[in-house]
Order: sequence, then structure tokens, then C-alpha cells
Amino acid sequence: MTAYTDLMTFQRETEALAQVSGRLEWDQETVMPRGAAPQRAEEIGALEAVLHARRTDPRIGDWLDAAEGAETDEVARANLRRIRHAYTRTQRVPARLAAELARVTSVSQGIWAEARAAEDFAAFAPTLEQIVALTRDKAAALADGGAPYDALLDDYEPGATADSLTAMFGALRPRLVALRDRIMGAERRSPALSGDFPEAAQMALTREMAQAFGYDMTRGRIDKAVHPFSSGGGADVRITTRTSATDPFNCLYSTIHEVGHAAYEQGIDPVHALTPLGQGVSMGVHESQSRIYENQLGRSRAFTSHIFARMTDTFGPLSVDSPEAFYAAVNRVHPGFIRTESDEVQYNLHVLLRFDLERRLIDGSLPVADLPEAWNTRFEADFGVAVDRPSNGCLQDVHWSVGLFGYFPTYTLGNVYAGCLHAALRRDLPDLDTRLAAGDPGPATGWLRDKLQRHGALRPPRATIAHATGEEPSEGPLLDYLEAKFGEIYGV
Amino acid sequence: MTAYTDLMTFQRETEALAQVSGRLEWDQETVMPRGAAPQRAEEIGALEAVLHARRTDPRIGDWLDAAEGAETDEVARANLRRIRHAYTRTQRVPARLAAELARVTSVSQGIWAEARAAEDFAAFAPTLEQIVALTRDKAAALADGGAPYDALLDDYEPGATADSLTAMFGALRPRLVALRDRIMGAERRSPALSGDFPEAAQMALTREMAQAFGYDMTRGRIDKAVHPFSSGGGADVRITTRTSATDPFNCLYSTIHEVGHAAYEQGIDPVHALTPLGQGVSMGVHESQSRIYENQLGRSRAFTSHIFARMTDTFGPLSVDSPEAFYAAVNRVHPGFIRTESDEVQYNLHVLLRFDLERRLIDGSLPVADLPEAWNTRFEADFGVAVDRPSNGCLQDVHWSVGLFGYFPTYTLGNVYAGCLHAALRRDLPDLDTRLAAGDPGPATGWLRDKLQRHGALRPPRATIAHATGEEPSEGPLLDYLEAKFGEIYGV
Repeated sequence: MTAYTDLMTFQRETEALAQVSGRLEWDQETVMPRGAAPQRAEEIGALEAVLHARRTDPRIGDWLDAAEGAETDEVARANLRRIRHAYTRTQRVPARLAAELARVTSVSQGIWAEARAAEDFAAFAPTLEQIVALTRDKAAALADGGAPYDALLDDYEPGATADSLTAMFGALRPRLVALRDRIMGAERRSPALSGDFPEAAQMALTREMAQAFGYDMTRGRIDKAVHPFSSGGGADVRITTRTSATDPFNCLYSTIHEVGHAAYEQGIDPVHALTPLGQGVSMGVHESQSRIYENQLGRSRAFTSHIFARMTDTFGPLSVDSPEAFYAAVNRVHPGFIRTESDEVQYNLHVLLRFDLERRLIDGSLPVADLPEAWNTRFEADFGVAVDRPSNGCLQDVHWSVGLFGYFPTYTLGNVYAGCLHAALRRDLPDLDTRLAAGDPGPATGWLRDKLQRHGALRPPRATIAHATGEEPSEGPLLDYLEAKFGEIYGV
Repeated sequence: MTAYTDLMTFQRETEALAQVSGRLEWDQETVMPRGAAPQRAEEIGALEAVLHARRTDPRIGDWLDAAEGAETDEVARANLRRIRHAYTRTQRVPARLAAELARVTSVSQGIWAEARAAEDFAAFAPTLEQIVALTRDKAAALADGGAPYDALLDDYEPGATADSLTAMFGALRPRLVALRDRIMGAERRSPALSGDFPEAAQMALTREMAQAFGYDMTRGRIDKAVHPFSSGGGADVRITTRTSATDPFNCLYSTIHEVGHAAYEQGIDPVHALTPLGQGVSMGVHESQSRIYENQLGRSRAFTSHIFARMTDTFGPLSVDSPEAFYAAVNRVHPGFIRTESDEVQYNLHVLLRFDLERRLIDGSLPVADLPEAWNTRFEADFGVAVDRPSNGCLQDVHWSVGLFGYFPTYTLGNVYAGCLHAALRRDLPDLDTRLAAGDPGPATGWLRDKLQRHGALRPPRATIAHATGEEPSEGPLLDYLEAKFGEIYGV
């Protein structure tokens, strides 16, 4: 046995236990009896304590020291890089700080939810101040002399920096604002789909679409949950969805989105199963898969013509009565305050706002008390509408209430990466629209599996995209795609 | 912090992790995608390794040594007794032997299933020989100079011995054989229910009955599985059931049986949650709860009159058209080879046969090669019928194939305990039949909760029954109950 095989044996058990943790989360959100919640918290706490002890086990350091010089194979080196990275970070956060953050964030989500329901930012502010202060301490500990915000980002997007994202997002924002303004000022309006859509039929159609997009039901399942999510890895990747009787797109596109996440996990070469490479490499790359499935493929003119036909088969005549009107309805750009209800054009503006504000919360230049005003001012500048109440403004997202700072920008990074991947796969698959119109995204999902998904976390995030596309990722393809698509739909 | 509080803190996390293990088993039998099986084996393996390391942690010995003299409280002493007992046993089995048993039994169930399907005992014999040999080694290690079979029993029924069970079962067997013979020779026959019973209606009725028997759905759920089981403890106790379109009793009574198990776990005083007292004290006492719910209550004349009414409401007129005929159909005694399909009269004869044979397998007086003949001879003696094929004989049960020796007798012990409890609760609740006939087993389940369930594992198994009934347990009440009930039904 070498140090590397010892380390990987130990790591494999840790990964298996992490999968168990994922299974508990799935259970909690789908099938757990409600009275089990307090006991479940203890079960998860005990398992997390086991995982923490394994992740900080000093033997990992010894094995790494012995193995890093000895291994030359690309896969071994990538595994060692991922393990070293995680081990170094876990070592840096003092146990007392981690415990205090866990303690505060175990109750803060409830406080946030109450404050949001009461439209009372002041009721949440002291809690958010605590979280921001603890997160700043954590960031400083993780940064070890480097940039604190970058150290937070690194949890979700290893290698990304605030500076590089600021440059990318700085190029996105004016063209998105301008596109949004042109659409809002356009004479042409998109219709909204209306009607009543039985839930069972929606679920049947959503299963059909999930399988069309390559979701392997022998290694996964679809259930309903309050918030759609994808969970687990390897041979057990489950997704959830939700239904709205009046809005079938909610179920359909949240499913296709989650299938994108799940396809990444299911598509990884089994040789990487239960190793550090056997999972998506970053939140941004993960989101690129969910977004390209949902938007560039699922909301394409070609594929929506197939959905139109299948929805007409399923529900009878629709309120939008042609494939072209249906395509416009699917891609309708509408004013709104809520990020999660937003469209492809405005979504990134929501994210950019949060990215800019959370950096200032972390660097201390924006006191928590001033957050609502800063939010509302920025929102009006980018969206042209005044925020009417906190639940439509800075209280709308759960993220900060549970200490997620550095997470928001990965949403837009995912869209940027999706733009790059889409441009490349269109070059490689000139006849894709014919297949999409026939209800078959297979050539595109096969391309993504081959170029990206199967490699798991073998390469760092940007290198993963560059390997797939043959180019360094940039915001250009996403902007070109959005301007072309929505310019045509709205005639602007 | 005292040694006792340190120990209980450690133990609580172990119990929480054991609950997680239970959740994985539930998941595997109900919702897991079939392609996830190999990965799941690794997940369970990793979690079991964590549990094993915790259960053999030498700190437990130190804490026990320090705490055992210091604690005087009844609950503390009971917790220490349970922990000491488990710790001593875990220490005694050499790791290499435990690993070898785990290795063999991880594949032996499949070999047994194939042999059973092929009606080929010889194909299973070498594997069974291995298992018996390893189990004998394990028994010798556990016994530490004592009786090997008793050491195996102790896993399932702490404190029970082969000698005490042999005396009890020796008193049961002749009266059961005689009762069986009288019934088989009776002129009066019980009708069999026939018809077609839609599955959804069966499930609705089974949920209604589960709740009538006190199953708390806010801390549990009912799903379908191949084999009905109860799983988990404390605030998360789930049961499964199955349906047969032609036999609604299968679903109904397996549910009431599992509700008995679940009610025991759900009924334990929450003060014992996630401690060694927060679970059923033994398999025998557990089975006493499932059996008294299923048989003495669920198959009583009074309660079956309610089921008859509800089934008529649900399914329309039945093939048995009076409450009395329905009661006879529910309690029909019929020839058969299979233990799990047996009735109250013959069930224990199946168990006694296995108890006698497995003791001889373990003491070496019965070679594996001679098992089929020994089985068939004994079966014909007790049941008056020749076994026609191995799947109806010694290949019918999974238990031995996974190394469960000492488990079978707890089934009959559970019936004996149920007999004792039933006699005592009938004395305390003279009007019970009026409530049962109205569909309300509440007085009986309330009595069981108060006298037995809420105490969890506070007292050893026999003392648990004696505390509830005020008498030392014996086989007399079960025999009296069976002879009276079936004597009346069959006029014998």
C-alpha cells in the first residue's frame, strides 16, 4: 500500500458518508414525517461530526505529504489537488468559529423567514449583522493573508476571484440593462400562457421531458418538494420538482433545470465514483449544465415547438395557439422583483446586484443597516422600478440568512459558461435544431457528456469549460446569444 | 462532566448514527433507484464501520468502569447495564471473524435465493456449512466458556436460555399439536374470503386501521415494500405493507402487525430518546406488541365485526356475508408448509421446529447435509403432511442464510408474552369488546403503552412483561386463549 492508496481508501469512505448525508437531506425535503424534524437535526449533527472529524484527520496531511511528490498520473494528481485544497481550508477555520457560525445559522433562517413574512427588515438586521461579522472572521481565517471575499468564493468556485468576476460582470451589466430597456420599450409584447393544467398530467409530461434530456431513472427518481433540487451523486442522483395548476412552465422548466444538474452527476465516468473527482467541479460549472438544459436547449425555438405539440396533446388547445406564440410565451420578459421568477435577460442583473452588495457587506463598506437602501437604489437603476417592500427586495433570498456569501455570483458564472458551451456545441452540431424540433436533445446532451460531464472534477472550473469549448471562457457568447434571441422575439 | 454524562453524550451520537443506518435501510426497501444498489452497499459499509469503531471505542470501557459504582438512579443503572452488555459482546468477537462472517453473509442470501428457486438444497449446503461453522466460532467467542447457543440468543433476547425456552416450548408443543389435530378433524370448516379488492381502497382502509391502532402519522409513514417491516425509532418510525388483489387480509393484518412494532417504538417515553432505553428491549417483547395488535386484538370477534362492516362499506358485499362467517374466515386454520402464511394455531409449531433444528446445527449434532431429512421428518410429525419440495421445507426462510441463529425462538416467545399481556389487559378492561366492536382498540393500546411501551428497555425482557402483567410470564395464557378461541370457532 502506498500513501496514495491509503489516502484514497480513507477518502472513499468519507465520500460514501457524504452521500449518506445527501440522502438524509433528500429524505427531509420529500418524505420525512414532520414530527421527526428535531430528531433528524441530531441525526444530521452526528453524521456531520463524523464527517468533520474525518475531513480534519491529521493522517490526511501525512498521506498528502508522502503522495504529492510520488504520483505522476493525471487523475491521481487531480485527486491530490482536490484533497489538499479541501484539507487546507478545513484546517484554517478555528473549531470555535465554525461552531458559532453553525449555532447562529441553525436559527437564523427561521428569523429571516419571520421577518420576510412581516415585511420587517429591522427584525432580521441584528441576526444578519452577527452572520456578516462571523463570516468576515471566517473569510479572514480562510484567506490567510489573501483577499477575504475570494476565500469565500473559493468554497463554491475554486480559483475565481472578485477581480476577475468584477471584470466579467462589468462587461455584462451595461449590455443587459440596454437589452432589457429595449425589450421593455418594444411595441411587440409576448403573450402569457393561461389555463388550468391538471397536476398528474404535468408530472407525466415532466417525466417524459426528464427522460428526453437523458435523466437515467434507474439511478434516480423524481419527487415533489417545496423547492426543486438535485441531490446525491454517482448511482443515486435524485431530483425534485413542484407543480402549479395555472403555470405548467414552473414544473417543466424546474425539472429540466434539475435534470441538467443531475445529468452532470450521472454523466461522470464511473471510474471517478466516490472520489474527489466524482462530482461536479464547482457551482458555476454545475449551473452551466442546469442552465444550458433549461434555457439554451429547453427554451430554444426548436425544442419549444416540440413542447407545444406535447402540451397540446396533453392539455388540449392552449391559450397561445401557435408554436411561434408559444415560443414567445416561454421566453416572455416581464417586470418583476423576484430573482427566482426572472427570465434569461433580467436574471443576471439580479445576481450582479447581490454580488456587488455582498462584497461590500464583507469588506465592511456597507453596514447591514444600510442594506435596504443600497438594494433599492441599485434595483431602480438596473430595473427602472422602485422596490415596494422588503420581501420584494433584500429579504427575498434565503442565502445570506444561512451564511452563503460568495455563492450568488456562481449563478451568473453558470450562465456565462452555458453561453460558451452553447456556442461551441452549435458549431459542432449544425443540424441540432432538426433534432430538437423532433423532441430529441440527445446530440447536445451527448456532446456535453463527452466534452464536460464525464470528466467530473478532473480539471479546475475554467479549465473544464476551456477543455470543452477549446477557448477561454468569456461573457461574449452569452451576450451575443441573448441579444440575438430576444432581439428577434421582441423585434428590437 | 461525570463519566456517566460523557458516556451518554457519546452514546447519544452513536444512537443517532444508528438511526441514520435505519433510514438507509428504509430507503433501500422503498424508494431507492435499483441502479443505486452497489453504491448503497458502500454507503452502508462506511456507516457500519463508523458504528463499529464507536461501539468498540475503549473509552466506553473507561467510562463504564468509572460510572458503574457512582450512579444509583434506576434509569442510569439501566443505561449502564445495556451499554456494558453490548460493549462486552462487541469486544468478544475477533475482528477477523466478524469480517469473515460479514463477507460470507454478504453473498449467501443470493445463493440461498437461487437454490430455493431451483429447489436445490445441495446448491446451498456448502454455503450453509460455512455460515454454521463461522456462527459456531462466533458463539464460542461470545459465550466465553458459557453455552454457545445461549450466547447467540442473547443478541435478540437478552437473558433467555435454551434450557428455559426448551421447557416452555416443550409445554406448548403437545397442546398445539393436539389442538391442530382437533381442528383438522373437525366437521366445521371456516370459509375463505374471495373476490377482487382494488389496491387503492385496501391502502385507504389499511391507513384507517393503522391510525385506529394508534399509529402516529406525524412521526411515521406507510409505504409499500416487498416485505412488510417497521423501521426507525423515536420520532421517525416508518412501516411498510404490501397488497394482494385477491387477499385483502394480507395488507390489513401485516399493517396491524407492523403498527404493533411501531407503536412500541413511538410509545417510549421521549426522555429515553436516543439512549439505550429508547428502543424495544428485545425481539420477543417487540413481537409481543406486533402479535397482540394483530391477533388478540385485530383478529378478535369484536374487532373483526368492525372490519367486516368497514370492508363491506369499502368493497361492497363480501363472499362471506355475516360478521360471524367473516370472523371464521379471518381465523381460518388451513394446512400449509410456509411459516409466514400460517395461522395462530400452527405458527408456533413452525417456530419450534426451527428452534430444535438450529440448536442441533450449532451444537454439531445435526450435520448440514442431514438438515432436509430432519426437517421433513419433524414437519410430518407435527403437521401430518409430507414436505413436497425444499422451498416448502428447509429452504423457505431467509434467516439462516444471513447468519440469524437464535432469532426464530423470539417469534414464539413474542406470542407467549402476547398471551400473558392479553390475559392481564382483559382482567383490567372488562368492557374492551364493546370498544373493539366500535372499531376502537384505544383502551387496549393505551393499557399497553402505559404498562409496557413507555418504559422502553428500562427492564430486562421477562421483567418488562412481569411488570406489565404482575406475574412471571408463562405459556399458559397463550394456550388457554388459543384453545378457547379456536375450540369455539371449530366446535372442538
